[in-house]
Amino acid sequence: MSRVTYVNGTYTNYSNSVVHIEDRGYQFGDGVYEVFAVINKQIVDYDAHLKRLFRSLKELKIKSPINKKAYYFHIRNIINKNLIIDGIIYLQITRGVAPRDFKFPTNIKPSLVIIGRPFTRNSYGSKFNEGIKVKIVDDLRWKRVDIKTINLLAPVLAKELAAKNDCDEAWLIDQDGYITEGGSSTAWILRKGSLITTPLSNAILNGITRQTLISSLKDENIKLIEKKFNINEIKNAEEAYVTSATQYVMPVIKVDKIKIGNGKVGKFAKKFRKLYMEAVRLT
Amino acid sequence: MSRVTYVNGTYTNYSNSVVHIEDRGYQFGDGVYEVFAVINKQIVDYDAHLKRLFRSLKELKIKSPINKKAYYFHIRNIINKNLIIDGIIYLQITRGVAPRDFKFPTNIKPSLVIIGRPFTRNSYGSKFNEGIKVKIVDDLRWKRVDIKTINLLAPVLAKELAAKNDCDEAWLIDQDGYITEGGSSTAWILRKGSLITTPLSNAILNGITRQTLISSLKDENIKLIEKKFNINEIKNAEEAYVTSATQYVMPVIKVDKIKIGNGKVGKFAKKFRKLYMEAVRLT
Repeated sequence: MSRVTYVNGTYTNYSNSVVHIEDRGYQFGDGVYEVFAVINKQIVDYDAHLKRLFRSLKELKIKSPINKKAYYFHIRNIINKNLIIDGIIYLQITRGVAPRDFKFPTNIKPSLVIIGRPFTRNSYGSKFNEGIKVKIVDDLRWKRVDIKTINLLAPVLAKELAAKNDCDEAWLIDQDGYITEGGSSTAWILRKGSLITTPLSNAILNGITRQTLISSLKDENIKLIEKKFNINEIKNAEEAYVTSATQYVMPVIKVDKIKIGNGKVGKFAKKFRKLYMEAVRLT
Repeated sequence: MSRVTYVNGTYTNYSNSVVHIEDRGYQFGDGVYEVFAVINKQIVDYDAHLKRLFRSLKELKIKSPINKKAYYFHIRNIINKNLIIDGIIYLQITRGVAPRDFKFPTNIKPSLVIIGRPFTRNSYGSKFNEGIKVKIVDDLRWKRVDIKTINLLAPVLAKELAAKNDCDEAWLIDQDGYITEGGSSTAWILRKGSLITTPLSNAILNGITRQTLISSLKDENIKLIEKKFNINEIKNAEEAYVTSATQYVMPVIKVDKIKIGNGKVGKFAKKFRKLYMEAVRLT
């Protein structure tokens, strides 16, 4: 079976899936995206991702190229046509094609691309049991990372540097010495039994997994503190995690040379994973 | 005659010029570019642009997809095939096509696109005689704008805001109140007969027109001061300018509500234009 994508109204063979060279996504990074996890053919946190997609579009004044309801239809089609059981959906919208000029063109039709990719869910379980290592990297990003745009070169370089240092993720540190978030995830530490993560602002993305995990804490006896944290606080942390659509809740066992807790996956990691999985009804 | 582009080794009709949806330029802004002015079929400042292109590639660890000498050959072909007398060449290189993953893929072939576009040189002259208006906009860009990447959403939004306010360019202001540069140009003021522009750092692009103009000052009795300047200094400026590959030297007559000098194009503007044009041998 050959893979199928959705590109501007047409279902297309993957290898023939193309956009024009003057698509503003290609020339300016003038576009937004979402990644949806698919588990057991179900789209995880669909409504929250779509809401954030529409917020991103609004912030950049890009009109949705299709009716809001049609997203679900096309994403489902991509899941079905690609026989995805577990995997991800990558959905990207750009301002569209126009002769190159920085300012917004008039009468432009936005471009929409949807790609599906299967993966084996087992890879998550084994990764979870090991925990991941994180490298701290300067946060070089622009000042509106609350918008989920495709201007991703700073996280690309950060995550490449992390990978070169045998780490799975980069934690981005601002000029005041605080961790903002991961290269493509939310960063968390557990201190004195309280779960700590950076508060929402223009300096971090409002993570959907972040939202879901926070909601799931409400009936638990765990205190959530939304505040910035620095390297000293990481040194004193009992546990640490990243969360994202594709990593769910993932324990962090090392940050640079700092061993977190006893360097093994902690008991709260398992609790948070369970809470998250229950919240998205994937247990 | 239909327009011709160069895309990954092939000369192609403009409307059929496409790249794959998983080109990293499209998904991450993982690429660099240059814009070359063409005047009288000649490529302006070719060596300097090519040098900067190779520096950008090196900073991002992208290998040149073709031999260094081949760039001139292909750019010339695009000029000839499109019958360009005056115009611009847009050249873009991205890391290439790979299944989406932030870190650099192995064994990837970079993508190369070259687009030519004619324009009438008269438009410069009439614009020069009027001068342009500039809007001050917060500099939201990432911290490595010395690399000429396609992560251009911040300048896109800045220049759109400028255009909405009936201005031709945005001047980007940092959090300390200093102008870094224009949305797609270098910013200059003239005070007490001295020409002032922001010094090179990671916070501005090393403009080729900036370089050429500075070199051309050497035999003149004009003092160049490379230092940051703020709104107060703009208020006290006698003249102001932007420079870029497509705007050459362009006088600025208004910055926000601040009228520069007497609000007309000043005598030094003409002098700097002449110096620049002589330097690139276009008089």
